[in-house]
Amino acid sequence: MNNFEYYRPTRILFGKGQIEQLSRLLPRDTKILMVYGGGSIKKNGVYDQVTAALKGFDYLEFGGVEPNPEYETCMRAIELVKKENIGFLLSVGGGSTLDATKFIAAGAKFAGQDPYDIITKGLPVADALPLASVITLPATGSEMNGNAVISRASMGLKASFVSEKVYPQFSVIDPSVTFTLPVRQTLNGIVDTFVHTMEQYCTYDVNTPLQDEWMLALMRVLIAETPKVLADPEDFNARANIFWCATCGLNHFMSLGCVQDWATHGIGHELTADYGLDHAQALAVVLPRLLQTQKATKKGKLAKLAYEVFGVNEPDEIKAAGVAIYKIEEFFGSIGMKTHLKDYGIDRTEAAEKTRAKFAARDIHLGEHANITADTAYEILMGS
Amino acid sequence: MNNFEYYRPTRILFGKGQIEQLSRLLPRDTKILMVYGGGSIKKNGVYDQVTAALKGFDYLEFGGVEPNPEYETCMRAIELVKKENIGFLLSVGGGSTLDATKFIAAGAKFAGQDPYDIITKGLPVADALPLASVITLPATGSEMNGNAVISRASMGLKASFVSEKVYPQFSVIDPSVTFTLPVRQTLNGIVDTFVHTMEQYCTYDVNTPLQDEWMLALMRVLIAETPKVLADPEDFNARANIFWCATCGLNHFMSLGCVQDWATHGIGHELTADYGLDHAQALAVVLPRLLQTQKATKKGKLAKLAYEVFGVNEPDEIKAAGVAIYKIEEFFGSIGMKTHLKDYGIDRTEAAEKTRAKFAARDIHLGEHANITADTAYEILMGS
Repeated sequence: MNNFEYYRPTRILFGKGQIEQLSRLLPRDTKILMVYGGGSIKKNGVYDQVTAALKGFDYLEFGGVEPNPEYETCMRAIELVKKENIGFLLSVGGGSTLDATKFIAAGAKFAGQDPYDIITKGLPVADALPLASVITLPATGSEMNGNAVISRASMGLKASFVSEKVYPQFSVIDPSVTFTLPVRQTLNGIVDTFVHTMEQYCTYDVNTPLQDEWMLALMRVLIAETPKVLADPEDFNARANIFWCATCGLNHFMSLGCVQDWATHGIGHELTADYGLDHAQALAVVLPRLLQTQKATKKGKLAKLAYEVFGVNEPDEIKAAGVAIYKIEEFFGSIGMKTHLKDYGIDRTEAAEKTRAKFAARDIHLGEHANITADTAYEILMGS
Repeated sequence: MNNFEYYRPTRILFGKGQIEQLSRLLPRDTKILMVYGGGSIKKNGVYDQVTAALKGFDYLEFGGVEPNPEYETCMRAIELVKKENIGFLLSVGGGSTLDATKFIAAGAKFAGQDPYDIITKGLPVADALPLASVITLPATGSEMNGNAVISRASMGLKASFVSEKVYPQFSVIDPSVTFTLPVRQTLNGIVDTFVHTMEQYCTYDVNTPLQDEWMLALMRVLIAETPKVLADPEDFNARANIFWCATCGLNHFMSLGCVQDWATHGIGHELTADYGLDHAQALAVVLPRLLQTQKATKKGKLAKLAYEVFGVNEPDEIKAAGVAIYKIEEFFGSIGMKTHLKDYGIDRTEAAEKTRAKFAARDIHLGEHANITADTAYEILMGS
């Protein structure tokens, strides 16, 4: 097991009716900004529940955060925060809204010229406004981590930062608010969670049996619970299990001491930036082909996945590893998640060349062996 | 899945050489009290590592905390804390030292007459000194929770309190400091961890597949790693895996949303208070017999344990449940942990009658169905 440091001070309130806990947990001595997205919370009852709990608090609203949240949107919120002397941020929505809220929190206290330097130049977040979340989409795990992905369309960028300063103080997770999620978003969240787990699991063995078994269990549970929510969107237990998988999938607890990958995300972000693919769609396109190119170095973990998640009966390790890749793609296909660029009307040669050029310009090396360079990314996307 | 609230703000520093991180993490603006036990840290090099990291800090030492830490010892430390105006506590040792440190932290700020009222009267901990730990024994999970068990021999009591105010700010876990642990303490820790997991797992199903699989995985890993440390006490990976199991075994993360039991601990504490049995020895005596009396209501979880941890091939659920109990006792026996009162020279009739009398006097109802009363405890111990 590798050395590690773990710190996750976010309080989690999970279950039916937990949104009303806001009135216990939010601060009463400062002005709150409620940040939300395109308005789905006004349709599914979350907005009403939150504003009922906010009765008596001093708060303003900032709506309109888009999926793949935009730098420009965040900058408008930062302006409002400063003008109104906001002291606390409450994100109400999915991972995009929460990621934006994290960037707003850091940006509002940023001492330099442009807060995007936190992302592009890796400047540390010295301070940030306190924040909390009501998370409505099981997907990014943003509710229990310090990560945020922010796009800047004007520069063709989609990139992330991570800081302890932007952990939510608390996150409210009521799985019943996901009953009305469109199928596309439900599936996106499931695929996102699956790929998060793969990025942490599927590298090479450093003797972490407990962690490996947790991650394999998470993938088994996702595969078992997905058909249930597709059959009955109001199956509370299945929704709860999927949400808890999503949170655990990226609070970094299950993979402590393990070697991680994250190359699928690195390439996937380019597809989203260039073609507007949903994050999970991009991951579903990249993962199988990336695993094909890395099968030799990942074969141990892939074979274990074949045996313990997919019940494959094939004693030869490298053959079992190959079957695991087919099984993952089969799982994505079985739930209606397309895995080829052409399925989304994207020319793979163009996409591969674009990504190769960008990776080469930034001299990018991804993956646990830092061997996913411009040329490998090209090969992966040419296979997609 | 049941509703839950989770908050665990302890920073974990895990791995070789992490004790030197103390110099980065301890406060420099207040006086620190280093709390430790009987002096084993002076033999295994931990004392030297800690004092080297403490160079330049303003600190005092308080040694001599005993296993099953005593109220009287804690009260002497509280006196010292007040006299010397201590502002931060650093526990260096096992769970007993850390539990004592938590009680000292709460007691030093206690506004009432007798801090033991926190335990016997369940008074809330309104405030506590900040504390941290270098944990040297994989067992109690105290390094990542807010629990503490404190004995008061003069009253024949061994009981616990729990408070968010006594979470360690950080805990340092270097598995290599456990290379020199006596076999008895190694086994105690493993059995303690196993029973902690059983207390959280083995109740009834409320649809928590991810949590169940994590707990089953933890027990599988413990069973697989134990022979390795017995064969080679300096097997770093096995020591690391066992320590991480112990921490995860009682940070309450893996069982969120599950129904819990804790009756084995309730009865075990009496045996330790009455006869000085090691905590884990007491648990090993109680658990198999408790499971026998509760087999009917626990059969679903027990059968799953039989299949997934012990590989039992018996389709009938109640029969498989019975085999699981034998397998647990067989595991304890295989590592040299005795499971009968007579093995420890204790008269079971006397022990059973003592516990029945105490449970009756306090009208105790333990277990997930609150059905473990004085008479059931008597039956359990008469079978032990």
